[in-house]
Amino acid sequence: MTDHSFEIDPIGVVRTPFERPADTPKQGVNEATEGEVVLSREYEPGLEGLTSGDSIDVLWLADDADRSTLRVRDGERGVFSTRSPHRPNPICRTTCRVRAVDGTRLAVTGVDMLDESPVVDLKAPMR
Amino acid sequence: MTDHSFEIDPIGVVRTPFERPADTPKQGVNEATEGEVVLSREYEPGLEGLTSGDSIDVLWLADDADRSTLRVRDGERGVFSTRSPHRPNPICRTTCRVRAVDGTRLAVTGVDMLDESPVVDLKAPMR
Repeated sequence: MTDHSFEIDPIGVVRTPFERPADTPKQGVNEATEGEVVLSREYEPGLEGLTSGDSIDVLWLADDADRSTLRVRDGERGVFSTRSPHRPNPICRTTCRVRAVDGTRLAVTGVDMLDESPVVDLKAPMR
Repeated sequence: MTDHSFEIDPIGVVRTPFERPADTPKQGVNEATEGEVVLSREYEPGLEGLTSGDSIDVLWLADDADRSTLRVRDGERGVFSTRSPHRPNPICRTTCRVRAVDGTRLAVTGVDMLDESPVVDLKAPMR
């Protein structure tokens, strides 16, 4: 039933102050931390309507993740009951606030990703 | 910068009452709608610690999506400012409640996915 894989093409990258995995926040996000989401030029039409002040869910890949991880916290917890980035499909989500839009560059606050992490989607948060 | 693609291997499927795209809820989720998340056997260790009553974010693929869509609502909105399933990387998220766990079968409520949609991740909701 799950024998077909699916190809994700990143739409851009996120720039953050966190250059090493050890630098990224482990618990919670500092809403003031500034970063930038930079999409490839071809995706510019997809940003129509996004403006300063909007909240946006950024889906990104933890591309340094150990995708073989199924247990965490010394084996006591299954990864699917946690938010660990180390998991079979390391797709993470961070809700950011848009400060400014300039073409395909979004200045945002509230980042917690490793610098240069691939971005795979942006979407409006659930109401 | 975004020239490498990334392979996602579904970890299971979700069973829901919605057999055709037109049946799926367009706005909001009925929290009472029952479904089942069925993971492949190999992922059972990842479920350790998940119990009845837990909320869980289900990441799934809208595999009938039109991945070329960048504008929606008659071209007025960019897809990244919406939650439309038609988008370049159609990874969707639904927060469900676990009713029971039996091996790699999770009985859940709050589903809104098309029946048999591939599941790519489960994680604890953000606090």
